[in-house]
Parts: sequence; structure tokens; C-alpha cells
Amino acid sequence: MTAAVFSIGTEITRGEIDNTNAAWLSEELTRIGLLVAEIAAVPDDRTLILASLERLGRDHEAVVCTGGLGPTTDDITSECVAAVLGVPLERDDVSFETIRARMERFGRTMAPSNAKQADFPQGATILPNPHGTAPGFSVRVGRAHMYFMPGVPAEMKPMFHDYVAPAARALVRDAAFQIRLRTFGMPESTVNDRLAGIEAEHGVTIGYRAHFPEIEVKVLKRSVDLPTAEAGARSAANEVRSRLGDAVFGEGETTLPAAVGALLRERKLSFGTSESCTGGLVAELMTEHAGASDFFKGAVVSYANSAKSDLLGVEPALIQAKGAVSSEVARAMAEGARRALAVDIALSLTGVAGPGGGTAEKPVGLVHFAVATPKETIDRNVLFPGTRRYIRRLSAYAGLSLVRRVLLG
Amino acid sequence: MTAAVFSIGTEITRGEIDNTNAAWLSEELTRIGLLVAEIAAVPDDRTLILASLERLGRDHEAVVCTGGLGPTTDDITSECVAAVLGVPLERDDVSFETIRARMERFGRTMAPSNAKQADFPQGATILPNPHGTAPGFSVRVGRAHMYFMPGVPAEMKPMFHDYVAPAARALVRDAAFQIRLRTFGMPESTVNDRLAGIEAEHGVTIGYRAHFPEIEVKVLKRSVDLPTAEAGARSAANEVRSRLGDAVFGEGETTLPAAVGALLRERKLSFGTSESCTGGLVAELMTEHAGASDFFKGAVVSYANSAKSDLLGVEPALIQAKGAVSSEVARAMAEGARRALAVDIALSLTGVAGPGGGTAEKPVGLVHFAVATPKETIDRNVLFPGTRRYIRRLSAYAGLSLVRRVLLG
Repeated sequence: MTAAVFSIGTEITRGEIDNTNAAWLSEELTRIGLLVAEIAAVPDDRTLILASLERLGRDHEAVVCTGGLGPTTDDITSECVAAVLGVPLERDDVSFETIRARMERFGRTMAPSNAKQADFPQGATILPNPHGTAPGFSVRVGRAHMYFMPGVPAEMKPMFHDYVAPAARALVRDAAFQIRLRTFGMPESTVNDRLAGIEAEHGVTIGYRAHFPEIEVKVLKRSVDLPTAEAGARSAANEVRSRLGDAVFGEGETTLPAAVGALLRERKLSFGTSESCTGGLVAELMTEHAGASDFFKGAVVSYANSAKSDLLGVEPALIQAKGAVSSEVARAMAEGARRALAVDIALSLTGVAGPGGGTAEKPVGLVHFAVATPKETIDRNVLFPGTRRYIRRLSAYAGLSLVRRVLLG
Repeated sequence: MTAAVFSIGTEITRGEIDNTNAAWLSEELTRIGLLVAEIAAVPDDRTLILASLERLGRDHEAVVCTGGLGPTTDDITSECVAAVLGVPLERDDVSFETIRARMERFGRTMAPSNAKQADFPQGATILPNPHGTAPGFSVRVGRAHMYFMPGVPAEMKPMFHDYVAPAARALVRDAAFQIRLRTFGMPESTVNDRLAGIEAEHGVTIGYRAHFPEIEVKVLKRSVDLPTAEAGARSAANEVRSRLGDAVFGEGETTLPAAVGALLRERKLSFGTSESCTGGLVAELMTEHAGASDFFKGAVVSYANSAKSDLLGVEPALIQAKGAVSSEVARAMAEGARRALAVDIALSLTGVAGPGGGTAEKPVGLVHFAVATPKETIDRNVLFPGTRRYIRRLSAYAGLSLVRRVLLG
């Protein structure tokens, strides 16, 4: 029982967009319990599309396709499917009326090019699209159940969840349950070593996904029914948690900044940052989700030394004596931010993000950070590897990780 | 003459990583002048790899492959290629010694698993890898020239440029030259309409690539030789520039924040921001590249109203009377940032990023921004569509675009 993910679109084969649909669908199908044995993409070319559809229909039991359902002349997926099946295209009146009404609602009149989006291979099952004009459809090609969806992620994802996922689940004999644990601060090879043996002991599959610099650990359990699968996944996930210790900061979609935000909200503490090398990145991460104003008051990005002194009250003599990248200045920045922003807890970061500006004593990648609380100020420093972008992101996460540990005591 | 991009790795077919290599290689091959007729990926599975190699060797003239060259037992690309060709694997002594010396330099001893990275299908041409342990190789399979490279982008990209690109170019009869123009502020459909006819008039191909919220316009000219192709591309690119006006802000890798930074540096002007809804995003974008300290002094992220008053001197009575999201507060924030950061030019942003917090008068997506200069303060407001993430990014770019227009007069 194998599955394939198939994308149609010249914008993909010319490399004009990253095919994020393919990764998303592969992950979802794997979670359902299908083996994705192939990912394929072809341009908007009739010959190439026909050849791929025939081949995929021979090689797999389930094929999930995106793209080529739009109104333009490039969009030829439906006619290619009809040609492979040797059936005509037929207008679906309900879809036609839905498209017409949708366009009217947005103040547009329906062109013949939109009308074609209501044409489907004879015998196809139509998959409604409440988020756009192009409905999807499913047909049998060869031995494969094939599902055709629009390429726009915001239209494709709900259609997948509402229609394709239940159908795909029905193809799999056993049930599957997955738990996603989010980690930071432990290299993937160490995580891997620490989790050795859990797959065999618990009969689960452990997978990884990098959301740099976080690593997500996915624990997948398949069993005869869903309650058994869920119980098995929970038991294995507990084992993972105990082996990884406080590198695990959350589950599912919870990022490290969101986990820190939740702790601050729960404890009714206000928070702010003073940032040099990260240039505002921590503030941006902390305000990514709505409701951040419950705990986040503001930040001072003190990129120039004058801003460190004028806005945070860091003594110019201290910067002169110790250098802007030093534990003393990091501490003074954190304490200055607590005062200037009138917050309970402040995080500061100052470092050499590179690629230039490093010295033997203070090399590229050296970052000092400090957390000031009403009770004390704690500082740390780390030498990060990698490019400027990596160093900045790692610094931001390391700083937030220190805030999390301070909050947890 | 068609090409395929082929990726080997279970992490791809399980959706654990985005296959950014495929998009990058497709773009590079298209630029060289090859038609990428297929992108494919399979898991680390011998049967599936063999079947794909045979098929790709029948269907294409050039196949560029990544992945499966590492030291672990999953990495079976070389042995699969040898099996398809019916030849043995042979140890390459030069590669072996290079790997050994590299590992020694990093203080590690060579394991048998690393030794296998020096084994290649008999008759293969070896592609050296100065950035990692796994060399690549090229062979002929069926009618295709196949190039095998490591999956790590930092190792693959230089290997492609040094060895694969020249070989691929030799397969194409004509020369190609591409110019990439970066735009912001015009929807893709408008860009598309404005450029109608240029492809036919100038004999070029026009492609797009979204780097949200920027749109890159790629002008590709193919001709008998490089100077002719370059001249043709330049002439068409000039026509594109004149039709798109000041929506075009740069060429190649130059992002809008980098273009603004270059203008500030050139004019020896210092810059800072005060940000509310964007939470530090503009500061982060302006400090993304090294050398930002030439023009960027700092930012005040005044998320809470108290920070707007305490750090920027915005009168609490003004916030009370007009609301934090208003042209008056935006102007006061920009002027306050000029003073507090002691900069020549300051940008402020205050808006409703959503998804909550909107009212009939001030809906989600409404953003006020202002630019304060020594001469004057200019303000604008825009109602942006989309999610919180989109609204924040669009706001940051719209603000920087206003700074750019102010600098250009």
C-alpha cells in the first residue's frame, strides 16, 4: 500500500516557488499511516502530465495531486485526467452556481475561463472548495485512488482535512496517533542517541522535523484502534520526555517564544528585551502571536553604543573598559531594560554576529546574554557556530531558553 | 533535451524537511537553459531508487540527484547506481585520503562507515567536495548524464556551481543570460499585465519568484553566444524597469531593507525605528546584513502605551484622545524616535495586526506609519489584508518603501 504526492505546475519545475505543499502532504499522509513512496512534479505540459498520471496509477494505491485547477489556459489538470480515463468533461451545475455566486459576492462577473472550473471528468466525485473558486475532485486511475486539489495552500489544506484525509484513512487498515514534542538546545544527533531503543520497546516510529533552531520529535503509534494507538503514543512520549529532560518545552504547535509567553501570562509577569546583535529578533518572536500585550511591554534595540547609554543607562566608561560584548554590559543592559521599560523581567543580548568584527578574544559567534528579575541578574555566554543568520537565531532562542529556566526556577 | 531533479531520502518523503534543494536546482537548471520536465523524490529504499534511476535514464538527457551519499546504512545511492549499471563499487584512494585528512583535522578518526564514502561505481567521474566528507560523482545511465551530489545545501551548491553547471551548460546549444529585478508594492497580476508583450518583442522569457512580500521578475534571454544574450536581456530588463516604475528597487540578491541600507550609507544618514505592531521586525530586517552599524543606531519597540510615552515622549493625552493607532501618534512616535535614538531619519509603525482588536473605525490590518527627517514628518496609512504574519510583514515593507521614496526625494 503506497502513496504518491504529485504536483502540477511550471512554477514548480522552474523553481519559482518552493513546493511546500509536497512536504505538508507527505507529512500528513505519513501521519495517517500511508507509505509515501514517491513525490513527483511536472510542468503544465499535456504529454508529461498524461504520462505521469498513467504511471502513478500503475505504481500506487493513493495519489494526492495539487495544481492546474485554476481558470487560466495553463490549467489543464481536469482535461488531462479525462483524457487518461477516456471520458468527456462534464459541467457540474452546482459547482457552476457556487463559483458564480462567489464571484458575484466579490463584485466580479464570471468569465468563460472561470466556468471551466466547473467542468470535471465524467464520473468524478467533486470536492467542494469554500475558500476559493476551484473545486477539487477524486477519480480512480488504474489501481490508484487519485485526489485532485488546488495548489493554493489556504484552499488545499482544508480540502485535504475535510475530504482527502478521511478517504485516505479508510485505505489504511490500522489506526495511527501522533504526538509532537518540541525541543531546543540539544543537537539532533544527541536527541537521536538518547532515544535509542524506544522505537523497539514501544512499537512506535520516531521522526524528526527541524524548525531551526527547534527540533520537533514526532512519536507515531499504529494500532488496531485509535484509543490503543493514543495510549501507546502517550506512553512512548512520556519516555521521550523523561530521556530528554528540560530540552522538551512544549507539544504540537507551541514554539519556544510561545511557551515563554504562556509562562509569563500564567504568572502575570511583564517582560521586555534589550537587544544588540539580534537587532529586535527576540521582540519580534515574542509578538508573533496575538495577545502578546498581556506580557510584552517593549524592547530597546541598542545597536549603537550611544543607544545603550542614552536609553538603557549603560555607563560609557563600562563599555569602554569591558567592550560592548561582555558579561558586564549584558548585565547592565538587562537591568537598564527593566527600568526603562518598567517590566518585571528583562532579557538582554549582545554579541558578535559576524561575519566580520571578530577578534581572537571575542570571536564571531560569541554572545553574552543576561536576565534581570526583581531578585537578581543572571548572565551566560555561548560561542555559536554558523552564519550571521544562524548566530542571531540561536542567540534569540538561547536567551529565551534562559528566561524559561529562570521562570521555572 | 529535458532534465530532471531527483532527491533521495526518507526525510523528504515523510515530509520532515522542505525539499529546498529541488527548487534551487530547478531554478539553476532553468537559468542554464534546460527544460526541467520532472522533479522526483523517493525514500531510502533500494527497489524504489533502482526503478526511478532506470526510468529517469530513459526519459531525460540530464538528471541532477541529491542525497544518500552520507556514512550511515540508509545512504545507498552509490550502490544503487552501481547496481543499475551492473558494475562493482571501487574505492578511490584520493577521495579516501581526503576524507581521512579532513576528519583528522576535526579531531575524529575514520570509521568504516566513512570509508564507504570513498567508494564509487566503476567508471564514475568523481566530483570533489571541499565542504564535507561526501564527494559526488557523475555517470551515464541510459541516455542521461547523471550527477550525484550530497543533500546538505552548503555542500551541494558549490559542487553544482563548480562541476555540474559547466557540464550542464555544455549540453545546451545556446547561451543564456538572466537578470533578476526586485519589486515591491505592485500585485503580481498588475506586474504581469504591465509586462504584456515584452516576451514576444524582445524574445525573452519572463518568470516570477515570490519572496513575500517582494516579487522578483526574472528576464531570461537565450541566444547564440553570451554577449548577445546579455545585451538582449539588458534591453528587455530596461523595458521592464520603465514599465514598472519605482516598484523596482534593486537587482539580484538586493532586498528592500538592503536597498534602503545602501541609500542611507551612500548619503551618510543615520536611521532608527519605533515600532508597535511590527514588534521589532523592521529593526531585525535592517540589521540582517553585516555592516548595518554604518547607518542603523537602534529601535524602540513600544508595544505598550507606557513605552510610547516613557521612551519616545508621546503624550499620554494624545494617545487617549486619538488612540494608539492614529496618524498623530505615528508622527509623535517617529519624531520621538529621532530624538531618543539621535538619528537623522526615523520610521514609526503602529497598527492593528490582528486577528483580534479590530473595530469598525480601526479594523484589523489598519497600519499608520510615519517618517521623520530633519526637515519634515510624513505619514501614511494602509489597510492590509491577510493574517497577522502577513500584515506585520507588509507593514514593515511598506514603511521601508516610504523611507526609500523619502530618500530618493
